[in-house]
Amino acid sequence: MKRIEVNTGRPYAVLSEPGLLSRTGELCREMNGGSRVLIVSDTHVGPLYGDRAAASLEAAGYAVSRYLFPAGEASKRLDTVREMYSALAAGSFTRSDLIVALGGGVTGDMAGFAAATYLRGMDFVQIPTSLLAMVDSSVGGKTGVDIPEGKNLVGAFWQPRLVIVDTSTLETLPPAFFTDGVGEIVKYACIRDRELFDLLESGEALTPARLEETVLRCIDCKRGVVERDEREAGERKLLNFGHTLGHALERYYHYEGPTHGCAVAVGMARITAASEARGLTVPGTGERLLRVLKRCGLPADDPANNAALLPGVSMDKKRDGVSIDLVILREIGDACVYRLPLASLAAFLAQESH
Amino acid sequence: MKRIEVNTGRPYAVLSEPGLLSRTGELCREMNGGSRVLIVSDTHVGPLYGDRAAASLEAAGYAVSRYLFPAGEASKRLDTVREMYSALAAGSFTRSDLIVALGGGVTGDMAGFAAATYLRGMDFVQIPTSLLAMVDSSVGGKTGVDIPEGKNLVGAFWQPRLVIVDTSTLETLPPAFFTDGVGEIVKYACIRDRELFDLLESGEALTPARLEETVLRCIDCKRGVVERDEREAGERKLLNFGHTLGHALERYYHYEGPTHGCAVAVGMARITAASEARGLTVPGTGERLLRVLKRCGLPADDPANNAALLPGVSMDKKRDGVSIDLVILREIGDACVYRLPLASLAAFLAQESH
Repeated sequence: MKRIEVNTGRPYAVLSEPGLLSRTGELCREMNGGSRVLIVSDTHVGPLYGDRAAASLEAAGYAVSRYLFPAGEASKRLDTVREMYSALAAGSFTRSDLIVALGGGVTGDMAGFAAATYLRGMDFVQIPTSLLAMVDSSVGGKTGVDIPEGKNLVGAFWQPRLVIVDTSTLETLPPAFFTDGVGEIVKYACIRDRELFDLLESGEALTPARLEETVLRCIDCKRGVVERDEREAGERKLLNFGHTLGHALERYYHYEGPTHGCAVAVGMARITAASEARGLTVPGTGERLLRVLKRCGLPADDPANNAALLPGVSMDKKRDGVSIDLVILREIGDACVYRLPLASLAAFLAQESH
Repeated sequence: MKRIEVNTGRPYAVLSEPGLLSRTGELCREMNGGSRVLIVSDTHVGPLYGDRAAASLEAAGYAVSRYLFPAGEASKRLDTVREMYSALAAGSFTRSDLIVALGGGVTGDMAGFAAATYLRGMDFVQIPTSLLAMVDSSVGGKTGVDIPEGKNLVGAFWQPRLVIVDTSTLETLPPAFFTDGVGEIVKYACIRDRELFDLLESGEALTPARLEETVLRCIDCKRGVVERDEREAGERKLLNFGHTLGHALERYYHYEGPTHGCAVAVGMARITAASEARGLTVPGTGERLLRVLKRCGLPADDPANNAALLPGVSMDKKRDGVSIDLVILREIGDACVYRLPLASLAAFLAQESH
C-alpha cells in the first residue's frame, strides 16, 4: 500500500492500492470512532461498488446507510445536498459519524460540501472511482455545488480525513470519462512535472503498468501545492491552468458540451497559444502541448471562439473587481499566475483567424 | 470607542460605541479592500438602519446593494440563503468583496453562512442590532440555517472580519426582544461571571448607564471561550448552558412558543434543578437563578415537562451515538460539561411532581 501524507491544517493520508476498496472499513476505523456511515454515490457507481464498501464498513462495526443521486453534473445542486442533509438527520448522524463519498468529482464535491456544513462540519472520506477525482478533486479540500448562476459558486474548503485510491475501479470507467481525467493529468505535467509530460508524450504514463504511478505523481504534485497554499491565496491558483477558459466553455454550452477535462484541454491550448503569441511562453510550447493532447485523445479546439467565451470568463472566481488571475506557462513544467486587468482581457485572448 | 480583539485562527476586532453605525464604511475599509458590499437585513431592521449603513459604506467608496428578507425565524432556511447567493451573483461579487449582516441573530447566522459558502468563503462584517446578537451570536463564528429536521443543523464555523456594536440601536428593539437577549446575559453570568450575576441580582446590569458595559462583559467572556476552543471541542460547549433543553423546548412548540432567550431561561432553570437535586450543584443555586430570571422578566418554567422534551433533546448536536454533553453549574459562575450516557438521560431529567 502506498501512502501520501497531506499536511494541511488538519492532516490526512491518501492511501493507494488496487483492491483497497474492500478494506474501507478498517481504514476508516483507524481515524474515526463514530458509529454511523452515510455512503454517497450516484446511480452509476453505487450499484457497482456500493456493496463492497458497505460490507467492509459494516464489518468494521458501522451502521451503514446509503444515499444515491442520479448520475451527472445536473445533480450537482443545492437540492441534492438538501436531500443528503435529510438522510443525515433521518439517521440521527452526529459530528463524530462519517460521510463516505464513493464516486467521481460530482459525488466528492457535493458529499464534501454536505460534510462541511452538516452540524457545522463532520468527518468525510473520499473514495474516488474516476480518474478525474483520483488525480484532482478528491485531494485538497475543495467542495462545492453549482447554482443556476454558475458552477461551483457555492462551496467550502473542507479537507477529507482520508482518501482511498483503488485504481482497479478505473476498469469500469467508460473511455470518455477516462479521457476526461487525462485532461487534468496533462495539466499537472504542464504546470509542475516536465518528466510526466515526457511520459505522456511517449505514451508510457497511461499504460496499465504505470497508471497508478501516474495517479500518485499527480496527487503528490497537488499535495505540495495545497500544503503551501490551502486556501488558494497564491500558488494554488496554478492548479487552475486551463480552467478559466475551460469553465467558460462548459458554461457556454450550458454544461452539455465538452466534459470538464476536455474543456480544460481546450482552455490549456488556447491560453498557451495566447501567451506564446504575446511572447510570454517559450516558442514551440503550444505545439508540444497540442501533440500531447492529441495523443491522449483530448480536443485542442472548439467551435466557440474566445470572444464568445468572454462573458463566462468574467464570472470566474479567480478575479477581483478590476483584474483576473490567468495561469500561463513559461514553458512545460513551469507555470505562473499573471494578474491581467479585466480591461485587457479581450485583447489578450483575441485569436488570430486561421 | 471600545475595542475587544478576538484571537481566533483569523483574528478580528469587536468595536463598540453608541452611534458607531454611522462609521461603518470607514471601519470596513480598514480591513477590506473590496469594491462591493451586500447589506443583508430583515424587513424590520432594514428600514430602520439600512440607509445609515449604506450611506456610510458608499462614502467609503463601496458600491452598495441590499438584500432584505421577511423578519422572523421562519426565514432562516436554505431558500433564503439561496436568494443571497443570487444577489451576490447578480452583483458579480468576488472573494474580496464584503457581506454586511445588519440585524439580529437570524440575519447574522444566515448572512454568515452565505459568506462562509459563497465562492468558498468571503469576508463579512457583523452589525448586531439586537441584544441577543450583540452578546452572543455575532461573535464566535457560528453560522447556520434551519432545515425542516432541526434548528441550525446546517452551518459552518466562519469568523467575521469585524463586529460593530452600536448599543443605540437597542432603543428601537421591542421589549420582548430585549428580554430575549437578557436570557443569554444570565447565561454568561451563570457559567463564568459571578460579579455580573450579582449585578443582575441587584438590577444594575441592565440600566441604561451600565448596559454597554454589560454587553462588552458578555462579549469578552465569549471571546475568551472561543479563543481557547474555536471549534467547540471542549470548553466552548459551556456556552450551551440551558440550550439543550432550551432548543428542545423551541422545537416542541415548532418555534412558535417561547423565544430563544426565554427557552434558554427555562432550560437553565430545569437543568440546574436537576443537577442540584442530584447533588452536583451547590444547594440554593437553583433558587438564586430563579430569582434573577424573574427579576429580568424571564420565564423559569413551561407547561411542557422534560419528558415531553426528550425526543428533541436526543436531536441535539452536542451528542455522539451513546452520550450527550450536558452543561451544569457547580455553582454560580462555575460551569462544567458532564457527559451523560443517553440511556440515563430520562432519569437525570425526571422532574419531581409539584
